[in-house]
Formats: sequence, structure tokens, C-alpha cells
Amino acid sequence: MRCDVVAVGTELLLGQVTDTNSQWIGEQLAAVGIDSLLQVKVGDNHARIVTLLGRVLADADAVILCGGLGPTHDDLTREAIAAVMGVELHHDEDVADVIRQMFSSRGRRMPDNNLRQAQVPVGATIIAQTRGTAPGLICPVRVGGVEKVIYAVPGVPHEMKEMVERAVLPDLLKRGGEASVILSRTLRTWGESESGLNERLDPVIDRLEVAGNPTLAFLASGWDGLKVRLTAKAATEGAARELLAPWESEVRALIVETVFGVDDDTMESVVLQILRERGLSLGLAESVTGGLASGRLTNVPGASEVFRGSIVSYASSVKFDLLGVPAGPVVNEKAAAAMARGVQRVLQCDVGLALTGVAGPEEQDGVPVGTLCVGIAIGSDVHARTWRLPGQREQMRQMSVISALDLLRRTLLAS
Amino acid sequence: MRCDVVAVGTELLLGQVTDTNSQWIGEQLAAVGIDSLLQVKVGDNHARIVTLLGRVLADADAVILCGGLGPTHDDLTREAIAAVMGVELHHDEDVADVIRQMFSSRGRRMPDNNLRQAQVPVGATIIAQTRGTAPGLICPVRVGGVEKVIYAVPGVPHEMKEMVERAVLPDLLKRGGEASVILSRTLRTWGESESGLNERLDPVIDRLEVAGNPTLAFLASGWDGLKVRLTAKAATEGAARELLAPWESEVRALIVETVFGVDDDTMESVVLQILRERGLSLGLAESVTGGLASGRLTNVPGASEVFRGSIVSYASSVKFDLLGVPAGPVVNEKAAAAMARGVQRVLQCDVGLALTGVAGPEEQDGVPVGTLCVGIAIGSDVHARTWRLPGQREQMRQMSVISALDLLRRTLLAS
Repeated sequence: MRCDVVAVGTELLLGQVTDTNSQWIGEQLAAVGIDSLLQVKVGDNHARIVTLLGRVLADADAVILCGGLGPTHDDLTREAIAAVMGVELHHDEDVADVIRQMFSSRGRRMPDNNLRQAQVPVGATIIAQTRGTAPGLICPVRVGGVEKVIYAVPGVPHEMKEMVERAVLPDLLKRGGEASVILSRTLRTWGESESGLNERLDPVIDRLEVAGNPTLAFLASGWDGLKVRLTAKAATEGAARELLAPWESEVRALIVETVFGVDDDTMESVVLQILRERGLSLGLAESVTGGLASGRLTNVPGASEVFRGSIVSYASSVKFDLLGVPAGPVVNEKAAAAMARGVQRVLQCDVGLALTGVAGPEEQDGVPVGTLCVGIAIGSDVHARTWRLPGQREQMRQMSVISALDLLRRTLLAS
Repeated sequence: MRCDVVAVGTELLLGQVTDTNSQWIGEQLAAVGIDSLLQVKVGDNHARIVTLLGRVLADADAVILCGGLGPTHDDLTREAIAAVMGVELHHDEDVADVIRQMFSSRGRRMPDNNLRQAQVPVGATIIAQTRGTAPGLICPVRVGGVEKVIYAVPGVPHEMKEMVERAVLPDLLKRGGEASVILSRTLRTWGESESGLNERLDPVIDRLEVAGNPTLAFLASGWDGLKVRLTAKAATEGAARELLAPWESEVRALIVETVFGVDDDTMESVVLQILRERGLSLGLAESVTGGLASGRLTNVPGASEVFRGSIVSYASSVKFDLLGVPAGPVVNEKAAAAMARGVQRVLQCDVGLALTGVAGPEEQDGVPVGTLCVGIAIGSDVHARTWRLPGQREQMRQMSVISALDLLRRTLLAS
């Protein structure tokens, strides 16, 4: 089974918008073992879309078309698909009704051009719209005597993703004579490199490659950590779960101390949740990260139940005067511990987390770029640890944030 | 002149890496008036790259190929181009020497497979490598009796960009019978929407479209603001500058109060620079943004000369106890002003900047989501302002950061 991807939109070719849709779709197709050998960006031009679809379908069994389903005159995907199918567009009153209801439920009048979105190629099946006004389309087409298929989905990423997961991938797998439910489990990890995880998981990876289902992939995601994703295909959701469970246990057992969460968990949400469960309040003292760690924590809705605030002590005198750090060098474990203790006192919180380090471009007081010292104060206990992190200024600061939060997580779980 | 783009790499199709190269190249081509009508991702497969190049060159005058120039067995771009040209690869001793020198200057031995990078299709011109080990290639090819061209550049973004700017764009323009220097000037703006800027610049845009050179583009860049970019083509750099200057003055005159910087300036760097010039120190009190504004400021190297630190007063009691905000509701101009005054005192700085607001998901004390109040204290002056910002939690917080910094910038410039 081969499914190529076409992203439609002149703004993509002009570089005004990054095409992340085809990347995401490529990732999903790979996870379920479908080849995707060409991914193309094309502009809002009827003739060029039609020509391109013809060429792509000469080689591929299927193509997913993203974008060009909007209500305006330069949304040409419906017309182009009808031309490739050799059919007319017809007005679908059910689709029109849904669009009208969407407008009226928001108390707005539907502009007439929205009815363009109710135009459907004869012979196509609708993928009902649940988020935006444009429905998706499943369009069978005969090419050289072979039955192939064109899927059309909106270009808005969250609408596109929902339709691909709900309708396109299951339909593709059914056409390939395969199971129709795909389920993924992502283990979120920190503390081990990609090659390190790979090495530790080697025995499982070998057997997974023989089994072929589920598949395993590593996804490095900066300060979101390193994801290990298992993806299973099965006839039912229950069967997919049963297929995943033993492999997940095996994988976990080999990298157990690196796993901080699953699926949509983040390091921030996990740390906040542990604190919430234990009824502990948190305060930060940030120097090298200058507020980034607090910024990440407060991006989690509900952070205010746990997080009291931070002292960003960028100038040394703020460390001395406000946090009570002893005069002297400020990038070492003693200073980090004093900062943690200081913020605990100043913000009256149960847990103090402190970060001090050197992000560069230059070393500081003889301490090399990349040095990070983290201090943690919980109740009357206080301890600190030092890392040497890679990367330029911005990357070093981001690595500092997740490293510090992970140390806090491990310390809380061990206490 | 039409130049399409092919990004080579199986990792792109699998979604492990986002193809930002073709986006960047598309932006550069558009800026100099060259059409780019197809941009394709293809895997590391000899036959497929050859077939694709043939198809693309049937329609386009030129194609830029990114990636696949590395030293390993799955780097196939050189071989594929030679096949399309119908020529052999030959070993280029000059290129090999440069690679050997790169290794020896780093005190490393060159692995033999790096000599693959000295293989050059007969008839191709070298684009000398200045950053990585792979040279770029300019490869003339006859298609249907017409002279066309294939450019090969590395997939590593900073290597690719340097070669495209230095060699590919000038060569393309020369082939199109056009001038060979391209120069851009970007005005960084904040405070007006894209359509608002568009409207104000309408008279200039009309005349620019008639003139055709320079071109003007709007680029919305989140909390980096909205960029207005003028791009000129000319025979020499001096001529390009002369061409740009009067248009830049005209554009500036129409949107003067929105322009906070040019080219690589950022709102953060501009604010820090104004403070540095005036010998003023800065402290922040952040609530709604939770440290994000401080995180942005401290990403600028040298921020420590000006920026003393922040109090992230997420819990209301921190606002009351540490910053001295009067008890009561905390999202209003009075509270913002008190926070600014408070941080000025606690961190002993000349300028206090405070942000309080509601990022959602729920309203707070009857204050709706999207509300931002900013307080500014300079010396003994203090004032505050309120906005109603759009977007979900993360977007609202990012807009808050740039809005607050811009208000500080305007206040400093007016004082």
C-alpha cells in the first residue's frame, strides 16, 4: 500500500506558512506501515492540481490532499478532484444543513459562499465535519483500470488530524486488507540519549521487527523530552490494546527510570500533578533560565493551585539581598542550594527549586558554558546537583528547564 | 523563470524531520520574483530521484535539490544528477583537498567515505563549501533541446542558506537575464494587524506593483511581531541599496509608530538597548505570563547588564505580601501599577514592568479571558494600560509579552 500526500496552498510555496501537515501525515502513515514516497506542495491552481493528481496516482494507490476546502474562490480542491474522477459536483443538502447549524449555533449568519463547501463530487463519500465547516471527502477513482482513492481533508491542522485519525487511516487500512484500528502508546522519557535508549531496547526492537506489529519509533522533541512510541494495528480497539500492553511492559521494564509520563503528559504537568497530590506548594529561583522554567509550568492550566511564583535572580545582588545567597561565586551547588532555601522562605512555599548556570556565549567566573547547578529544598531537606549540558544559549537553557524539573520529579518520588 | 524545489531524505517522508528548507527557499525565490510551482519531498532512492527530476524539469527551468550530499551510501544526490545529465562522476582533487584540510584543521582523521563528497558530475560547476564538507553543485542539463539547470545544496539549513544566497540566487537571476544582487530590508513592527498595515501601505503597494522592484511582503511571526520586508534586485549591492532606500523611507513614513526595529532586531533586544543607552536597570513583575517575558529578555546575550530580575507573582498572596499590591482584585490597572512599583522597590531597579491578566481557560473574578493589564514604573512615574487580546492560553500569553515590552519601549522613547 502506497499513499502519497499533496498539500495545497500558494502560501506554502511562497514560504509564508510551513507545511507541517504532510510531516504529521507521513508520521502516521509510517506508524501503520503504509509507504509514502512523494509529498508535494502545489499552489491554488486548478490545472496544476489536476495534472499533479494524475501523476501521483499513476504510481501510488492513494493520495491524501490537504487544504483548498475553504469557501472562497481560490479553494479548488473539490473541483480538481471532480475533474480527475471525471464527474460533476453536486450540492449535498445534508452537508449544507450542518454548515448552517454551525453558523446559527454561534449566532452568526452564514455567508452564501459557504455553500461551496456543500459541493461534493458525484460518487464521493463524506467525512463529516466536527470542528470546522468543511467536510472531508473519500473519492474512489479508476486509474488504468485499477481502483484507487483520493482523500481530501482541510488544511487547518486540528481539523485535518481529527479526520485523518477518525476516517482516513482506517479506510486506508481496510483497502489494504488490513485491520482498521490503530492505537499508539507514547512513553515520555528524559535522562537518556536516543542512541542510549536504542541500545537498551535493542533486544525488544529486534523481536518487534520480526513481529512487525506493533512498531516502535523514537521521536526527539527538545525540551519535551524523548518519546518512545509503540503503534499497533488490529481489528478492534480492544485487540489493539491487548497487542500493545505486553510490549509496553517490556519496553518500560528496560528504561523504567527514564519514563516520566505517557501520551499527552508533559514534564511540567507531571511535576505539578505530583505536588498537587501531596498538597505541596512550589516556588522557583531562576538565574540561568531567566523565567523559562516558570513560563513552562504556568502554561499548564490549573498551575496556580500548586505554583506560587518565582524569583528570577538574574543579577547577583538579587541572589545575595533577596534570596540570602552567601556572597561569592554564584554558579555552584552551594549557591543553588541557598537559592532554593531562599525562595522557599521568600515565597513561603513547601518546595523550592533553583537553577543557576552559564548559558554563554562566554564562561562566567571560570565556570564553563553549559554548566547547570540545580538546588532543591523540600521542607528542611536541601540538596543540589550539577550537569554539563550541550548546545548554544537557547538549547542549553531549554535543556536546563527539563533537567531541573526531572530532578524535582525524581526527588519527590523518592521522598 | 520557474524554479521548483526537491528536498531529499527518507526522514522527511517519515515525518521525523520537518522540511523547513523548501519553505525558506520558496520565500527567497518569491522575494526575487522567481516562480516556484512545485516543492517535493522524496526519499533516498536513486530511481525515484531520477524520475522525479525528469518530471520536474519537463515543466520548470531550474530545480534546487536539498540534501543527499553527505558521505554515506544513502546520499544519492550526486549519482542521481549525473544520471539525469547523462554523464559520469569524476573525482575532483581540489574538492578532496578542501575536505582533507577541514578534517586536519580540527585535528581529526578524514574517514575514506568522505571522498564521496569529492565526486562531481562531469560538466558541473562547484559551489565551494565554507561551512560543511559537502560542496554545492551547479549542473547544466538539456531537456527537450532547452538548456536548464539543477542546483544541489546540502540539507543542513545553515549550509544550505549560505550557498543559496551566495551562489544559487545570483546564478538563477543571471540565467533569467536579470541583475545578480538581491538585498532585503525588513521593518519589524508591532501594534497594527496585517490587514491594517496593508491598508495603510496601499498607495505604496500599488506603485510597487507597477515598479516590480523592489517587492514588498508581510510576514506574521507570532511574538516576533509582524515583518514588512522590501527586497530589491540590482546589478550591484550599491545599486540595490539605492533602490531600497527611498521605498523604505516611504513605507516607514506611513507606519512609523509601529516600527520597533529592522532586520535582526527583536523587541527584547531593542528594549534592552534603549535601557542600556540610558543607563537604566529593569525588573519585571509577571503574573499572567508566569516568567515568559523574563525568559525572552534573558535569551538576549548581555541582558545581564540591564536586567536585574523578576518576581513571578503567580499566587495573589505573593502580590500582596512581597510586592505590596493592595488586597482586592488583582487584574486591573491599579494592581498592575502597584506590581510595577513593588518590583522596582524589591529588586532595586530604575524601571519596573508588570503584567497581570487572564490567560484562561476560565475567566477570573469576572474579568474575561484575554484581558491584559500592564503597569510601568520609571523613577517616580507610574502608569498602566489594559488590552483585550485574542487567542488561546499560549497565544494570549505570547501576545502579552510583546505588547508589554512594546509599551515599555514607547514609554521610554516618549520620556
